[in-house]
Amino acid sequence: MKTRTNNPPIGIFDSGLGGLTVYRELRKILPSENIIYFGDTMRVPYGNKSTESIKIFSSEISQFLLSLGVKMIVVACNTVSSTSLDIIESITKLPVVGVIEPGVKLAIKKSKNKKIIVIGTRATVNSHSYKNKIEENDPTIDVIEKACPLFVPIVEENFVNHKASLLIADEYLGEFKSKDYDTIILGCTHYPLIKNLIKKVLSDINIIDSSKACAGYVKDILTNNNMLSKNDGDGWTDFYVSDKPQNFMELAYRLAGVKICKINIKRF
Amino acid sequence: MKTRTNNPPIGIFDSGLGGLTVYRELRKILPSENIIYFGDTMRVPYGNKSTESIKIFSSEISQFLLSLGVKMIVVACNTVSSTSLDIIESITKLPVVGVIEPGVKLAIKKSKNKKIIVIGTRATVNSHSYKNKIEENDPTIDVIEKACPLFVPIVEENFVNHKASLLIADEYLGEFKSKDYDTIILGCTHYPLIKNLIKKVLSDINIIDSSKACAGYVKDILTNNNMLSKNDGDGWTDFYVSDKPQNFMELAYRLAGVKICKINIKRF
Repeated sequence: MKTRTNNPPIGIFDSGLGGLTVYRELRKILPSENIIYFGDTMRVPYGNKSTESIKIFSSEISQFLLSLGVKMIVVACNTVSSTSLDIIESITKLPVVGVIEPGVKLAIKKSKNKKIIVIGTRATVNSHSYKNKIEENDPTIDVIEKACPLFVPIVEENFVNHKASLLIADEYLGEFKSKDYDTIILGCTHYPLIKNLIKKVLSDINIIDSSKACAGYVKDILTNNNMLSKNDGDGWTDFYVSDKPQNFMELAYRLAGVKICKINIKRF
Repeated sequence: MKTRTNNPPIGIFDSGLGGLTVYRELRKILPSENIIYFGDTMRVPYGNKSTESIKIFSSEISQFLLSLGVKMIVVACNTVSSTSLDIIESITKLPVVGVIEPGVKLAIKKSKNKKIIVIGTRATVNSHSYKNKIEENDPTIDVIEKACPLFVPIVEENFVNHKASLLIADEYLGEFKSKDYDTIILGCTHYPLIKNLIKKVLSDINIIDSSKACAGYVKDILTNNNMLSKNDGDGWTDFYVSDKPQNFMELAYRLAGVKICKINIKRF
């Protein structure tokens, strides 16, 4: 039994289970960290909801994680990272890490011709958070953004390999075929599961997975601030959700290969 | 200006905007009724959420409608009608009408060979509410149920006429082609918008629109209980939502041809 005092966990949250792709990457590179994951399955998805509501949800969840004594907050959700980092930073002095900045830095490094596509939910795309952050880093980069709202249900309903999904991917991304964008940012934590689908439409493109980039960023911050776990062996994980739907365990496993044995319910 | 006292409105609610298809039918046949519509856009969709959560949401919304002085509650949502009528009936003695019973009665009337398909969200199908209600009325009827979770996003994202949607419809419904089911119940308020898609897969089938059936049922109850509106002319409508997403007005118009000029926000 690991001691829970004096070795505070990382708090990580998402609108639902998509953020488990970030959790999985964190677990790979930081095995000894204690982690609390929260998925707002009661109000999922956030992607088509208003910025005002997303800010309220983000604030409630952050306050809940802080009440559990986390040492940092990882926002494993592109929609929240795009709209609500400011509200979270206003309620804590602990480090707050979203997925936008890590993804942007990696994309800029990878793009040779300075032409980048960003795909995500409607809320993420409408926020222009990726575009703004890219231009803040390098104003000479050409950025095009595209909302792809059907990709999340396609992943959740296990239609990724269905021929209908290729038609949908072609509808969303086909317009970029003849253009010379060399890099695409997956601005949604569900999208790593449709990498192969994207490659079928845009074969020669660098695919930037914000989940992976985010995990590396978290490790850097913990290392640089001397905040790494003091566990000798593996850390523990506590999973919380605001609603436990019937296909929860199966979805967690399919999305991120995460086997969840025990789940806690925290309603708002 | 219509007087609001002594002429109480009908209260109608849905998980989001799909229930506007029921509202539209009500408006057609009961133009002089005052109506309050509530859409739980903050927590939409309900279809993949747990029964426990749906009961909590339904109770909160019903209590809100009752606080506004409604004379009856119309549950314009198949998922709520399937899982939570009991909880609503436990908090009020006013008439509570769901979409299941009206849809079932119409389907039984239409089916010649007593073979009925029911399609809906995962929560509706898992509740077996349609199957149970049909068998309660006529145990000799053969009922098959099928969850079609991608139909809602297809409607909401305006992909109904896209060739990908026909492939998805064929994936869900193709298995019934060679069988002799003669009637299909649209067990979700979004599905009237995919009638043509269903006809392409199952060409010779009676399509039962629960929204229409429900509106007729409401009129009967008001008439039989001497509860019809005392307005001389047209009644008023107040729209409430728990979140106002960016594509709200456009979606309301596309789903149900309803032009909403003023919207009130009620959060939970």
